[in-house]
Amino acid sequence: MIRILVTGGTFDKEYDEISGALYFKETHLAEMLRLGRCRVPAVIETVMLVDSLAMSLADRERVAGRCRNCDESQIVITHGTDTMVETAAVLAGSVTGKTVVLTGAMVPYAFGSSDGLFNLGSALSFVQVLPSGVYIAMNGTHFPWNKVRKNRAAGVFETVDGAQ
Amino acid sequence: MIRILVTGGTFDKEYDEISGALYFKETHLAEMLRLGRCRVPAVIETVMLVDSLAMSLADRERVAGRCRNCDESQIVITHGTDTMVETAAVLAGSVTGKTVVLTGAMVPYAFGSSDGLFNLGSALSFVQVLPSGVYIAMNGTHFPWNKVRKNRAAGVFETVDGAQ
Amino acid sequence: MIRILVTGGTFDKEYDEISGALYFKETHLAEMLRLGRCRVPAVIETVMLVDSLAMSLADRERVAGRCRNCDESQIVITHGTDTMVETAAVLAGSVTGKTVVLTGAMVPYAFGSSDGLFNLGSALSFVQVLPSGVYIAMNGTHFPWNKVRKNRAAGVFETVDGAQ
Amino acid sequence: MIRILVTGGTFDKEYDEISGALYFKETHLAEMLRLGRCRVPAVIETVMLVDSLAMSLADRERVAGRCRNCDESQIVITHGTDTMVETAAVLAGSVTGKTVVLTGAMVPYAFGSSDGLFNLGSALSFVQVLPSGVYIAMNGTHFPWNKVRKNRAAGVFETVDGAQ
Repeated sequence: MIRILVTGGTFDKEYDEISGALYFKETHLAEMLRLGRCRVPAVIETVMLVDSLAMSLADRERVAGRCRNCDESQIVITHGTDTMVETAAVLAGSVTGKTVVLTGAMVPYAFGSSDGLFNLGSALSFVQVLPSGVYIAMNGTHFPWNKVRKNRAAGVFETVDGAQ
Repeated sequence: MIRILVTGGTFDKEYDEISGALYFKETHLAEMLRLGRCRVPAVIETVMLVDSLAMSLADRERVAGRCRNCDESQIVITHGTDTMVETAAVLAGSVTGKTVVLTGAMVPYAFGSSDGLFNLGSALSFVQVLPSGVYIAMNGTHFPWNKVRKNRAAGVFETVDGAQ
Repeated sequence: MIRILVTGGTFDKEYDEISGALYFKETHLAEMLRLGRCRVPAVIETVMLVDSLAMSLADRERVAGRCRNCDESQIVITHGTDTMVETAAVLAGSVTGKTVVLTGAMVPYAFGSSDGLFNLGSALSFVQVLPSGVYIAMNGTHFPWNKVRKNRAAGVFETVDGAQ
Repeated sequence: MIRILVTGGTFDKEYDEISGALYFKETHLAEMLRLGRCRVPAVIETVMLVDSLAMSLADRERVAGRCRNCDESQIVITHGTDTMVETAAVLAGSVTGKTVVLTGAMVPYAFGSSDGLFNLGSALSFVQVLPSGVYIAMNGTHFPWNKVRKNRAAGVFETVDGAQ
């Protein structure tokens, strides 16, 4: 059984046609698993629905708490990309004996041209085979939490030492 | 470096608006990697574009030959789902020392509601971390080639002994 | 009030992921009107769901009967493109005092790259302003029923005398 | 020949995956006409690409000038919905002898669930058959410029006297 913790991020943003702004309504994870014909037993839990730039340390610790206290040892977290690395560091400091994979999207799932479905397939796969630890799964690959940064100008994740 | 061998299957089918039939024009793999913002070095090679029900043993052996003779040791094969297991068995008998992951789709990528992008993200992830061997990546998980069958009535892959 | 008579055609075809064939399940008209935020009072009636190449004269007469016997004087008919002109001729011979606009699609609505939504917006608009008569609305314009043919090689409708 | 004047609005907004904001890159009109298999001779002219809330009176007069000075007598204008009625009033005061139809979208065309393609099919159809004057085509119908308002709370256009 895999636990999917939803925290928001670009992944789950939608367009509000009345205000013209982006907002969160509810997570698209169940719909995405259905679209992927995913048959891996998984439980979806919405911890919060926020922009990762608005996440506080307390928010990250709440996510860490859910990782520690849930029954599952394989955990996928959907998260905004801007502070995904910061949350990964908090998790690495307090979650042990579990495989935790954070993923996200550069474009909202609801907008058609999203990388979300690709990333979700990737994260769910990595979490089933990687040893215990905290990882980020983006751009088709996985990074240990302490070997990665987001290159905001390019909109991609890269290893800290630049070696891809 | 990952080699992606394209063989056709539902994955790459398109709708011919003149004849009203489904057909193959060219593979969508490059577009899908772009959509997934995939940054894993990968080379795409179209071996054939056929329905997997129309695949001959010679076709499967041609795919096996490409697996053996290419430089890469991580190989993803896109394949029709109906005879994916048969091709996997042929590969298992002749490809050694490489990780080969077959994947496909239940709905053409071009039709919007496809599982293709999810499966591609999954297959590309598994191929980077699984030990040598031949696997099928569908429905969010991976199966060793000799422990899986397609349940055609349900349209899903399942382990041979029924244990999920 | 506009009556929308559904007869099938490419418009409403779907992909059966078990058989790999195209088929009819139910009409997408209600969903399309919702997507178009259409607020024109309209009632949707599924008369049949068939390929227009499989339509018999009796089928066309059944459609004509529904046009004559319904209360509305503005009628949109969704129809396969291959024999749309034949049905239009049958309607022209037996429906009087009403504005009837036939439309269709070259690609199923469900497949993403469809012209269906564009054509529906067009047909619903023409039916509100054209005088009594039978018309075909395709390719962004309208044709009187006896001045049009489908160019099957090009997949477009054109005026019989070639004057666009 | 129809002239399509592009002014921006929700219609043409895109998601900037680096900044996470909505912005204008270029118009999608040509792509939309292609998708609709539109064969009506049409020329697309981008007058500006702005939010209609940011439109000045000078902007509206520039649009009016293009309407007066172009050769075509059938003109479709894509426009943000928030001040579409204001621009229509400016046009009505200075453009004569031409049929001008303004349209827009509640959701960007690029976001999948857009009403844009439906509205474009509608506007292009109305402009070919309505007598000279300035109209708004939204929600599947057309309104004379002085009989319509946008109900911002509901996100729909309605006749001023409430009679639909």
